[in-house]
Amino acid sequence: MTQPLVLGIDIGGTNTSFGIVNRRGEIVTKGSMSTTGHPSTTDYFAAMKQVLTPLIDEFGKENINGIGIGAPNGNFFTGEIVFAPNLPWRGVIPIAKTVTDMLGIKATLTNDANAAAIGEMMYGAAKGMKDFILVTLGTGVGSGFVANGQMIYGHDGFAGELGHVIAVRDGRKCGCGRLGCLEAYASATGIVRTANEWLEQRNTETSLRKNKGSLTAKMIQEAADQGDSFALELFDYTGKILGQTLADMVAITSPEAIIFFGGLAQAGDLLLGPVHRYMEENMLNIFQNKVALLQSALPDADAAILGASALAW
Amino acid sequence: MTQPLVLGIDIGGTNTSFGIVNRRGEIVTKGSMSTTGHPSTTDYFAAMKQVLTPLIDEFGKENINGIGIGAPNGNFFTGEIVFAPNLPWRGVIPIAKTVTDMLGIKATLTNDANAAAIGEMMYGAAKGMKDFILVTLGTGVGSGFVANGQMIYGHDGFAGELGHVIAVRDGRKCGCGRLGCLEAYASATGIVRTANEWLEQRNTETSLRKNKGSLTAKMIQEAADQGDSFALELFDYTGKILGQTLADMVAITSPEAIIFFGGLAQAGDLLLGPVHRYMEENMLNIFQNKVALLQSALPDADAAILGASALAW
Repeated sequence: MTQPLVLGIDIGGTNTSFGIVNRRGEIVTKGSMSTTGHPSTTDYFAAMKQVLTPLIDEFGKENINGIGIGAPNGNFFTGEIVFAPNLPWRGVIPIAKTVTDMLGIKATLTNDANAAAIGEMMYGAAKGMKDFILVTLGTGVGSGFVANGQMIYGHDGFAGELGHVIAVRDGRKCGCGRLGCLEAYASATGIVRTANEWLEQRNTETSLRKNKGSLTAKMIQEAADQGDSFALELFDYTGKILGQTLADMVAITSPEAIIFFGGLAQAGDLLLGPVHRYMEENMLNIFQNKVALLQSALPDADAAILGASALAW
Repeated sequence: MTQPLVLGIDIGGTNTSFGIVNRRGEIVTKGSMSTTGHPSTTDYFAAMKQVLTPLIDEFGKENINGIGIGAPNGNFFTGEIVFAPNLPWRGVIPIAKTVTDMLGIKATLTNDANAAAIGEMMYGAAKGMKDFILVTLGTGVGSGFVANGQMIYGHDGFAGELGHVIAVRDGRKCGCGRLGCLEAYASATGIVRTANEWLEQRNTETSLRKNKGSLTAKMIQEAADQGDSFALELFDYTGKILGQTLADMVAITSPEAIIFFGGLAQAGDLLLGPVHRYMEENMLNIFQNKVALLQSALPDADAAILGASALAW
C-alpha cells in the first residue's frame, strides 16, 4: 500500500537539506548537499537533480504529491528567490519553475519563516490554530503571520518581515541599512552585539568577558544557565525589546499563540520569560493574558525540511 | 422586480443611523435616531424596533438579506459590544442577538473600522483588492486589516487595534492608560494635543494662538490651508508619526494600499503628503514605492451606513 508523500527542500546558506515526508510529518528518508559548494546556479541545479532523481525514483514519482521549498527571501507568488544576501547567487533565481521543470513534480517556494509557520500548522505547535505568529530567532529575525488559517503573504508575497519592524527608534544600525530594526536586537547576532556593547561600556564582572570579541549567543545562554547575572540581564534586555514589539503585533493580528523557532529560541524560558513579562506589561488590556508563547514543536534537526514539505500538501 | 437589499446600522456615540442598501452600494432609504437619548439598552432597543419595523415592512422582510451593524468595540465573533467608552451603556451588550431576535432578520456586528474596511472592499476604494489596510482618523484611530481578501479578526475578534500600537516609546499618555499610542498623536484629538503643547512651549506666531484652549482639528486644517506655517508643521509632525508606524505595518501585511477614512483624513494631502514621505523614508527597501495611499471612496455622510451594510452580504 502506498501512502501519499511530499518532498521538502530547505535551501540554507551553507547546506541544502531535503527529505521525503508523509502526512503525519514523519521523514521517511532524508539527505543533504552543499549550497556554498555551487557558486553557479547551473551547477547547483545539476547537483540537485543528481541527488534527488534516484530518491524520487525509489518512492515512485506518482506517489509524490508535490515539492515544497523553503529558502531565505523566497517569494511564494513568483516562485523566485530575490536578492538573498545569505545565498551564493545574486539577483533573481526562478527556483520553483526550475525545480518543477527539472524533476517533473510541481514545486512551490516560500521563505524559510513562512515554511516554518506552515510546518507548525501542519505537524507542530500550531495544529488546529487559525491565528498565530511564528517567529524565527536565528542569525536574523523572521516571521510568518497566519490569520483565518491562511498565511499572510501580502499583495507581493513579501509580508511578515517582523525582523525589520523598528523596535528602537533611531536605534542600532541594521544590516538592511535602517536604524533600530528588531533583528538588530532580538536575534542571535543581536544579543551578541548587546553583550559586546555592554562589555565595552561597563566593568561588570562576568564569565563572558574572557570571550569578548568571539562571543556567541550559545555562550551567553550557557553563562545565563550558570546564573551569570550579566548574561541574565542580556536575556532580560533582549526579551524586553522583543516583548514590546510583540505587544504591538498582537494589537494588529490578535493571535492565539506566538511560536518561537530557531537557535536563540532554544534558550527557552531564559528568553521567553522576559518576553512574556514585557509583552503583557506593554499590551492593551483587551489582549492581556490571552496569548500563549510556545516553543516550536518540530524536531530541531528536521524542522526546516518539515516546514518546506508542509507547503507541498 | 425586487432587488436584494440589506439593512446597515451604524451605532455612533451620539446618533444611530441606518439605511436600506442595494448591491451597488446605493442607499435606497435612510434615517437616524438618538443613541445618547436612550441611557438604558431596553429603551434603546424599543426605540430601534419602533423606527425599523415600518422600514422593513415597506421593503418586505423577505427582500432584506441581512442586517449589518457597526459599533465602537463591536466584536464580530460574539456579536457583543464590550465596554465601549463612547457609548452610554456599560458592560457587555449582546447587540447582534438582540437585533436578530427583535427584527427576525440575521444581524451581524463588527467594530466601526472593520465595517468601513468591508464597505471600501464592497463599494469603495478597495474594490477588487485582497490585501489592504483601512485606517480611520477620527476622535481616535481605528483600523481594519484585510489579507487574502478576508478581514483579520484575530482569534478573539479584537484584531486591528492600530490606534494602540506604540508610536512613541514612553510618549504621551493615551486614553487606554498606556504611553505613546498612535491614537494619542495621529487622531483629531491627537493633533490638537500637539498644537496645545507647542503653543505652550513656543512663541511662534500663528493664527491658531487666539483659539488656544478651544482648538479643533478643523481649525488647524483651515489654518494650514491658509499657509500658516505652524499649522503646516503640525500636519508634518502628525504625518511623521503616522508614516513611521505605517512603515512597520507594511512590513507585516504588505498591503497594496492604505485607505484613510474619517474627519482628520479629510485634510487630504495636507496630512497624506507627509504620511507618504515619512512612510517611504522609513520602509524596508523591498516595500518602497509599492503601497498606494488613498482616501476613502465612500460618500462622507453615508459611509458608516454603507460600511455596516456591507457586512450583511
